[in-house]
Amino acid sequence: MLEQRLKELGIQLPAVNPPIASYVPAVREGNLILTSGQLPMKDGALLMTGALSPSRSIEEAQAAMRQCFLNALAAAKHVAGVDPVRVLRLGAFVSSTADFTDQHKVANGASDVAKEIFGEKGVHARSAIGVPSLPLGASVELEVIFSL
Amino acid sequence: MLEQRLKELGIQLPAVNPPIASYVPAVREGNLILTSGQLPMKDGALLMTGALSPSRSIEEAQAAMRQCFLNALAAAKHVAGVDPVRVLRLGAFVSSTADFTDQHKVANGASDVAKEIFGEKGVHARSAIGVPSLPLGASVELEVIFSL
Amino acid sequence: MLEQRLKELGIQLPAVNPPIASYVPAVREGNLILTSGQLPMKDGALLMTGALSPSRSIEEAQAAMRQCFLNALAAAKHVAGVDPVRVLRLGAFVSSTADFTDQHKVANGASDVAKEIFGEKGVHARSAIGVPSLPLGASVELEVIFSL
Repeated sequence: MLEQRLKELGIQLPAVNPPIASYVPAVREGNLILTSGQLPMKDGALLMTGALSPSRSIEEAQAAMRQCFLNALAAAKHVAGVDPVRVLRLGAFVSSTADFTDQHKVANGASDVAKEIFGEKGVHARSAIGVPSLPLGASVELEVIFSL
Repeated sequence: MLEQRLKELGIQLPAVNPPIASYVPAVREGNLILTSGQLPMKDGALLMTGALSPSRSIEEAQAAMRQCFLNALAAAKHVAGVDPVRVLRLGAFVSSTADFTDQHKVANGASDVAKEIFGEKGVHARSAIGVPSLPLGASVELEVIFSL
Repeated sequence: MLEQRLKELGIQLPAVNPPIASYVPAVREGNLILTSGQLPMKDGALLMTGALSPSRSIEEAQAAMRQCFLNALAAAKHVAGVDPVRVLRLGAFVSSTADFTDQHKVANGASDVAKEIFGEKGVHARSAIGVPSLPLGASVELEVIFSL
């Protein structure tokens, strides 16, 4: 069903990105899947780097967040061996200058694709915060809790 | 019982604030309720904006954190349809300049009201961190995990 | 078994650090243990303070993260009364200047000791992010979810 919905949306999940350090992309505990913080990696490169400021593109950052969500979904599928059914929580980290206060708009890039794919089961709790910097200079990072 | 305790404390829970983006204020999974990051909204306005620095008022920030907790409790009650019984974890985000290192004191504004309302069931695990900026320029944000 | 493994590794767990504020070092809910954010306290002093920048020592920060993990493990054991069996998730916060982008390398200080102690059960999901500042001026903070 997930596969079919992804196909309808024209979304191809990425191969699971190997972590850049000594951990795994996701773990399962009972009916929960916790993903590691996902960077906006696509085809081996970051979609966006550097801090968001009022002069940078929200749309570009939303697209990067969308990619983070797809990477998280791919990681969750890979670990659980079955498809996640529900999106419970997003933790959205946005590299930000002190005067950038649209972290919630950036995070919508992930929230919107979650609902697009999972429908009502994609509606989630969410925290969105600014950070001064992220691993490898990524502009955004996202962690997800799914349930089965 | 929760209603009675709130009444004794003279606390009136806010109406549930609609999220400022495409997510919900809280989700329930099993006996857990995860809230979204709550801003210090009261009557439609933020109680405090801008980064904490050594020259700003800790007390004002604690009051903002207290409001975040009340907003989280209102969201949890609204979603679960029953009263949360225990406070498990607070994630406290404090907009901070690089030289502000009293995030733990600010977070006490939430921790203290949690214990005031829930007693021993209000004693929780907690992380308190600085962030460069938050959605809408809020000074603080708080996410809560309750159990039923 | 945990005690024996710690002995083999020559690791002595610290006494549980009392929280610096109104919360507890860890809580148990079902078979999960959530720790509070742990600072790199050893014998009553912080192992490292101030923000990481490209000119500061990654190794020193990794050692501080390692201490945070040991503090979290001590807290978890203390709360649960039994030994945690598995490490599910690390949340690693690294005080960072805007040009420091090696948070993942710093977090390895915690990830590596988790695997050293717990073996395959120590392999976890992880988020590593930069923050502008932390309580008491600590350079790093770590929160852990264990399962029983």
